[in-house]
Amino acid sequence: MSMSELESAMIAIIHVFHKYSGYKCKLKKAELKDLINNEMSHFIIVRHSLSTLDELFADLDQNGDLEIDFQDFIALIAMMTSTCHDLFSTDHRH
Amino acid sequence: MSMSELESAMIAIIHVFHKYSGYKCKLKKAELKDLINNEMSHFIIVRHSLSTLDELFADLDQNGDLEIDFQDFIALIAMMTSTCHDLFSTDHRH
Repeated sequence: MSMSELESAMIAIIHVFHKYSGYKCKLKKAELKDLINNEMSHFIIVRHSLSTLDELFADLDQNGDLEIDFQDFIALIAMMTSTCHDLFSTDHRH
Repeated sequence: MSMSELESAMIAIIHVFHKYSGYKCKLKKAELKDLINNEMSHFIIVRHSLSTLDELFADLDQNGDLEIDFQDFIALIAMMTSTCHDLFSTDHRH
């Protein structure tokens, strides 16, 4: 039996993180920038709801080591998915 | 240009939530149970790391209305994806 849509989605998020982080399992600011520019090109509205990359990165990088780990990354994806959901729901209701 | 793997993953998470919540945009406990059983059948290890469904639901349902909204749901998915990531990373390192 193949994986469900939800399971595939969870694996895809892990996969894209590692595509940009490589084996170090941490994203530097430039890597996060590339990831957002390359992998979220259709979600311009959602990206516009974010603060600037510098502010965003500072928020996510709570220990100040200039890298974000998977836990920080998934928090970002959750926030963006939630924004995306709100935008779609608003569209449907009006 | 088609959506990236990450964008498709974010849409898939929104889609599965609505598949079980319907138009009310909230999941009741029985609906969350069905969603976990049907859509996370390959992630048994991850599910075992969760508390019981009753405890999990009580944790997520912070306002006590016996329903969880998308924000609560995405927090759960983030937690499960992070557990999933940790398990895979541990496998790779040992």
